[in-house]
Amino acid sequence: MKPRLSVEAYTEGILAGVRPVLSRAITLIESTLPSDRILAQQVLENILPHTGRSIRMGITGVPGVGKSTFIEIFGELITAQQKKLAVLAIDPTSQRSHGSILGDKTRMEQLAHNPLAYIRPSPSGGALGGVTQKTRETLLLCEAAGFEVIIVETVGVGQSETAVKGMVDFFLLLMLAGAGDELQGIKKGIMEMADAVVITKADAQNKTAAQQAVIEYQNALHLFPMAANGWLPRVLTCSALQNEGLQDIWNLIVSHDQHTKANGFHQKNRQLQNLEWMHGFIRQKLAEDFYENEAVKKSLPSIEKSVQAGEQLPTRAAQLLLDLRA
Amino acid sequence: MKPRLSVEAYTEGILAGVRPVLSRAITLIESTLPSDRILAQQVLENILPHTGRSIRMGITGVPGVGKSTFIEIFGELITAQQKKLAVLAIDPTSQRSHGSILGDKTRMEQLAHNPLAYIRPSPSGGALGGVTQKTRETLLLCEAAGFEVIIVETVGVGQSETAVKGMVDFFLLLMLAGAGDELQGIKKGIMEMADAVVITKADAQNKTAAQQAVIEYQNALHLFPMAANGWLPRVLTCSALQNEGLQDIWNLIVSHDQHTKANGFHQKNRQLQNLEWMHGFIRQKLAEDFYENEAVKKSLPSIEKSVQAGEQLPTRAAQLLLDLRA
Repeated sequence: MKPRLSVEAYTEGILAGVRPVLSRAITLIESTLPSDRILAQQVLENILPHTGRSIRMGITGVPGVGKSTFIEIFGELITAQQKKLAVLAIDPTSQRSHGSILGDKTRMEQLAHNPLAYIRPSPSGGALGGVTQKTRETLLLCEAAGFEVIIVETVGVGQSETAVKGMVDFFLLLMLAGAGDELQGIKKGIMEMADAVVITKADAQNKTAAQQAVIEYQNALHLFPMAANGWLPRVLTCSALQNEGLQDIWNLIVSHDQHTKANGFHQKNRQLQNLEWMHGFIRQKLAEDFYENEAVKKSLPSIEKSVQAGEQLPTRAAQLLLDLRA
Repeated sequence: MKPRLSVEAYTEGILAGVRPVLSRAITLIESTLPSDRILAQQVLENILPHTGRSIRMGITGVPGVGKSTFIEIFGELITAQQKKLAVLAIDPTSQRSHGSILGDKTRMEQLAHNPLAYIRPSPSGGALGGVTQKTRETLLLCEAAGFEVIIVETVGVGQSETAVKGMVDFFLLLMLAGAGDELQGIKKGIMEMADAVVITKADAQNKTAAQQAVIEYQNALHLFPMAANGWLPRVLTCSALQNEGLQDIWNLIVSHDQHTKANGFHQKNRQLQNLEWMHGFIRQKLAEDFYENEAVKKSLPSIEKSVQAGEQLPTRAAQLLLDLRA
């Protein structure tokens, strides 16, 4: 393990956009050591006034939809406009020690070598709550380091979409034409979260199916109640292979940014996200403290046993455990 | 408000299967008065040894799928075998003062007048956590009162399916043929929960579409990993109108009951459900206690303000609030 820097060194390095310092600060944030947590908090408080100015994008879609390829080509388009782009990932299920998008990092080879782009693999393992918090904090560091567009990618199965939606301004859902929804594992809830749906691989023999899918999804999206931000979700197509449709998608994101900043939703949404972050953290800490209590730890196994066996009412058992802390 | 009975009177009345006493005990359980909660706990502890012997069924499906009609006809079939049936509902969104399935109660007119059936509307309003707990407790009361089959119905949108899945042995998903999945609002997660999918209204001109849907859903279900209980979900059709398919569904449920009792999953599942109930209750209580703390209540508005404004790190603000309780 590399030695830690001082709070000042982290802060100055990040604000100056020094990559190695940013990377080390993210490693610091991912650490669970109590001394590291204190240091990380101080760094975060220092850089906080310099955050908030990026376009925060969430991207989801099931494996096989072409997420890495999309981000690669999309990233080239953004950086070609001299904008700095950071790509983060949320993948709570990953157990791989080097982070879950290391594979993607190899696949996103072009982008990985682009001086305006920064790709950071997801912290591996851990519960969703922890991973989510670390990603939020990493996002703040990247903003302070001057990144203007930040993509938070999710693996597209389970709960992580909600977590990503809770930290971004614009949520993009990638879909394949032709495959049934049930096969793509896309929940209605995720459709409802999307600010845009993009049908990928809309090239060659797929083109007609993609156009058909646009109509279907557009119809489906119209059935949902209008989102709180007054934004009607759009359905677009793209072909990473033929480099088609990417500019339209970027234009849409910029127009969404302008629209929501003008009607106040952008600010309101971020305020709400901050509040939810705080309350989520409180709930997480309350549970941690409770289950780490010595008296609770000692009695839990026998109480669980009697609850499992149906000998004790679960609510009574809960109250017994709660009363143990004194 | 009717006066409360004694613990003994509730207990004896329930165990003797006296309907009015059961109904009053459920009302007691639905009460949030602290004195009622204590009384309710005592009654529940008394009847606990007499619970656990019913087949607990969850039924879900979007509005329009014909849930009430299905339960009505299905209920007639069960009670025709001299089995006592209770129908409960989970509907956390309902604000109607007389319970959400009062309308259903009118619609389920035949079943409502059937001496072997008991229909209880959902407690209205309230958060999902509270409604879920009350439904679990009501289910126990019904078991102690001798009901052999208990149907817990959910409105089929949002989070309540997971809550119902967490308290039943068999989870039945009702679907319409022809309507797209996205229109039916059915999430992949719900498909994965289902022990059986039943295509309703499989009569007259719908018959072919229903058969087609059976094949589609069967294919879709095969894509999911085998459930932990070694049970392969089935897809069936039914017509409440022509009274067709109901016996097959009931046979399937009985066979599932035998299968999971033989392989030990039935017991394991109930043990797990009891544990989850306990831990869920603990988390809920921890949050309640925290947000009801006077110091927290006093400081929360100003701290929320600074978090919303982005002046304070949400995790730091959370820690500040947590430190207020001393």
